[in-house]
Amino acid sequence: MNKGDWFIEEFQGQAGALSFKVDEVLFEGESPYQKVKIVKNSFFGNVMLLDDLVMVTDKDEFFYHDMLVHVPMVCVDNPENVLIIGGGDGGSVREVLKHQGVKRVVLCEIDKMVIDVARKYFPDLSNCLDDKRVEVMVADGIKYIKEHKNEFDCICVDSTDPIGPAVGLFTPEFYGYVKDALRVGGVMSAQTESPSWTLERVVGIRKNIEAAFGNAYLYLCPIPCYPSGLWSFALGMKSDKDPVKDFNIERSQIVAKQCKYYNPEIHKAAFCLPNFIRDALK
Amino acid sequence: MNKGDWFIEEFQGQAGALSFKVDEVLFEGESPYQKVKIVKNSFFGNVMLLDDLVMVTDKDEFFYHDMLVHVPMVCVDNPENVLIIGGGDGGSVREVLKHQGVKRVVLCEIDKMVIDVARKYFPDLSNCLDDKRVEVMVADGIKYIKEHKNEFDCICVDSTDPIGPAVGLFTPEFYGYVKDALRVGGVMSAQTESPSWTLERVVGIRKNIEAAFGNAYLYLCPIPCYPSGLWSFALGMKSDKDPVKDFNIERSQIVAKQCKYYNPEIHKAAFCLPNFIRDALK
Repeated sequence: MNKGDWFIEEFQGQAGALSFKVDEVLFEGESPYQKVKIVKNSFFGNVMLLDDLVMVTDKDEFFYHDMLVHVPMVCVDNPENVLIIGGGDGGSVREVLKHQGVKRVVLCEIDKMVIDVARKYFPDLSNCLDDKRVEVMVADGIKYIKEHKNEFDCICVDSTDPIGPAVGLFTPEFYGYVKDALRVGGVMSAQTESPSWTLERVVGIRKNIEAAFGNAYLYLCPIPCYPSGLWSFALGMKSDKDPVKDFNIERSQIVAKQCKYYNPEIHKAAFCLPNFIRDALK
Repeated sequence: MNKGDWFIEEFQGQAGALSFKVDEVLFEGESPYQKVKIVKNSFFGNVMLLDDLVMVTDKDEFFYHDMLVHVPMVCVDNPENVLIIGGGDGGSVREVLKHQGVKRVVLCEIDKMVIDVARKYFPDLSNCLDDKRVEVMVADGIKYIKEHKNEFDCICVDSTDPIGPAVGLFTPEFYGYVKDALRVGGVMSAQTESPSWTLERVVGIRKNIEAAFGNAYLYLCPIPCYPSGLWSFALGMKSDKDPVKDFNIERSQIVAKQCKYYNPEIHKAAFCLPNFIRDALK
């Protein structure tokens, strides 16, 4: 990859996900888990690539982090203990800390290199990792989750795609461990891929969450830097609550004041699914 | 443009909107208004490019046409006469005809070449143009609209971007003529560009609609093949109705049975705006 090149994130070798002109290659490295690159572009700002897939850009990161974190956080009463699995860039931790009453956030990221480059090239995301309430663990999320029971109010699975190092974070067994690690009344959120370009994948992941939790609530958000620009997430609830009818509107309104994307109306709207997705879930 | 090339729709020379591999160039021509190309790609199907900007793809066209047409059509009582300005591919006409009770649809497209290539390369969009209720006019939309008063129940402005031949379809004067061409109680919809990448443009267009109609209701839809994947539309209402509270749910449910994207819940959700757009509209 060189300055002046066009980078194209290829989808099935036929379509481009994000593409942009490389203004500068800031970092290239290889960790035990993946190739890590940080590239500068005048429109997106700094961009993190893992195995040549766009993970996060300065310009667009707020869509993803708002929706992965605030939707589950307002579906649980008084969240104090929160676990982020993956998410080494720090963006999800930053959003969790916007909720008053949070006492402890554990970040469990397998790849130290991701945390290190985020600290250097994405200070707006990673600055929060030095907060007193945050514990940064460089560890395998699957191993970690097996060893913790009834401990967390909210767990956000902030993973890469279900190929490569993150495959194990999409299985029914893993979601079962996540459920066990939640206290009663707790909520899990997970990124669940693109419904417009990989709908079968979305359906499969949702099914795995349902197998573990007995429920799974899919919701949507536009994310310009991810394939197709339309992304999905899902909640698994360790309660009988309905994430659309029973979320805490007051806390939702308070946190929305610090958000670029999320607000209580968006919270409800995100669970409305187009027909082609509804039909696939039947 | 050659077979095997990657096509990149460049945004400000720095970012890619859609990019894809060119499997075959089916048509290249130049009309008095623009360069017209039809390209084949194994993932998107046939793609229409006008001045090298992606207008429509087989795979994704339903997002746009569902939302440009059904949202206004269910906001008006008993729509019988409908006008499409632009939209020479026929997709919007096809959606209008899904509403029972429609007696007449006028398609006013300035560029005959667009209609001709759509008939040849996009039969699923253009087949409806042979319906008895449809009048295909090759004419300047601005000239046409000035000559018609109190005639249409619904007008959809299905234009290209506000650069090149379509600039005149985004002015307060034009929207004023559209209002005059609507009967009392009628509704206009218009595509209003990308809120994530060209937010100032969205704000400006919305202001122009409001100047003419005294109201303007912005709504959103993901469109994978357009820049950033997130798109906006707006309604101008020649009535005091609220497009979220007062739309015809029964007709919305009926038409949704023939749609891949649109349904009554999506209708309401589309008007919920993220904070960064809300703030820009203040």
